[in-house]
Amino acid sequence: MSGERPTGLKANKGIELLTWGTPNGVKASIILEELKEAYGKDYTWQGINISQNIQKEPWFTKLGPNGRIPVIVDHDQGGFAVQEGLAILTYLTRHYDPDHKFSFSDPLDASRAEQWMAWQHGGLGPMQGQANHFNRFAPERIAYGMQRYTGETERLVGILDNHLKDTDYLVGNKYSIADIASFGWVNALRFSGVEISDFPNVEAWWKRISERPAVQKGLAVPAKGPFGNDAYLQRLKDDKEFADKEQTLKDQVAAAKKQYGYKYSSP
Amino acid sequence: MSGERPTGLKANKGIELLTWGTPNGVKASIILEELKEAYGKDYTWQGINISQNIQKEPWFTKLGPNGRIPVIVDHDQGGFAVQEGLAILTYLTRHYDPDHKFSFSDPLDASRAEQWMAWQHGGLGPMQGQANHFNRFAPERIAYGMQRYTGETERLVGILDNHLKDTDYLVGNKYSIADIASFGWVNALRFSGVEISDFPNVEAWWKRISERPAVQKGLAVPAKGPFGNDAYLQRLKDDKEFADKEQTLKDQVAAAKKQYGYKYSSP
Repeated sequence: MSGERPTGLKANKGIELLTWGTPNGVKASIILEELKEAYGKDYTWQGINISQNIQKEPWFTKLGPNGRIPVIVDHDQGGFAVQEGLAILTYLTRHYDPDHKFSFSDPLDASRAEQWMAWQHGGLGPMQGQANHFNRFAPERIAYGMQRYTGETERLVGILDNHLKDTDYLVGNKYSIADIASFGWVNALRFSGVEISDFPNVEAWWKRISERPAVQKGLAVPAKGPFGNDAYLQRLKDDKEFADKEQTLKDQVAAAKKQYGYKYSSP
Repeated sequence: MSGERPTGLKANKGIELLTWGTPNGVKASIILEELKEAYGKDYTWQGINISQNIQKEPWFTKLGPNGRIPVIVDHDQGGFAVQEGLAILTYLTRHYDPDHKFSFSDPLDASRAEQWMAWQHGGLGPMQGQANHFNRFAPERIAYGMQRYTGETERLVGILDNHLKDTDYLVGNKYSIADIASFGWVNALRFSGVEISDFPNVEAWWKRISERPAVQKGLAVPAKGPFGNDAYLQRLKDDKEFADKEQTLKDQVAAAKKQYGYKYSSP
């Protein structure tokens, strides 16, 4: 996170990752750290400060036309670029996880993993992202949006919690890209206004994954964000002003739910 | 769309599709109709009326835990169930498109297709879905939500339009599951408050795909919906009251964009 502003690719071999420390960004850095630890596969990264809109610059959108991080470039495949977290997780394991340490050779298990990745990619990610937007980033606090997306995030986390009641990981009781896809979002649940402790199976799963060294390394690319569940809880304890603001936000979400008759209904 | 209410699976061989005539639902019926035409692969379907919340009933969520259509069950694979549109498209082609008529054998093309499917699954689908919600289904018209999601849908359709300027189809200039994923949403653009004619490459692509017999058959499972771009335009002409209401909605969206300083910015 230094002052330098990327203006193009910088590597010429291996995988180059263009990313930022968001719930979507860490999917890519975590699998790359896992592959590095498991196979010694190295990679290069550049931090793309999304508040500076670097991801909208022509050199970037040529690689990732949607203008979103993360994007990877495989210099060993003629500079082939991959956008979209789900496609990055499958690309990297298809090419660089020959022993299926984080993926599956059985086609039905592969489909199960794909279903959970798609569930995150189309559900948990976008909806929790909207919760963040309405709870924090929108120019005004709009009760309808706050309760709609906080509620939908809770519903989705409930689906995950129910699935995890008899298993340690999402597919085949084995840590895989299916888990990595959702981990980044679950790691920021408290920031989004959802208390992870209300979902004990999800919390245990989140802790289990958090303890992996490669996950900790991945979370630190380009730099550890302030939105993780633990960091959030610590700041609540340390920073009275922050805690007061957060309580106000919680009260607003609760009032919004009441106003619109929201009832938790998952699974 | 008869009065009967499904209460469980009804087939015992081949693929059974549980669906409704929504932009996500038709992904599954279109690829199944294409496979039927290309390979003679037959399938069974049941209409799941989502306004009756059949997709939330225990027999359904056992198959699709997220409680959403479409879901397929492969009776020839021990009743293996697949939820999430992206995972259904890949499952069906992986198992039942041996000649890669709608998919790709080359791993880089397969990744390109996966990237566009994920782009739809995490972007166009959820965001256009929110546009529908704020423009039509929410209990009140909230200007901020209307402009946010109509605008984001326009941005995304602009990405598609730009990509289609030199090619007839999204990947390898060949009609594939990448196109099918986005077709259902693009087919309902006018209903969502986005004028498809403003995006000429997308409009030409949409017409090209619409002309396929299997696509027309897929759109009619369980019954042709009233939200297609053509049906919408026809109703504007035929139904003065509808046209007036739609004009009011368009004015509201335009006013909302103005209020929040929205500017089209894609790609």
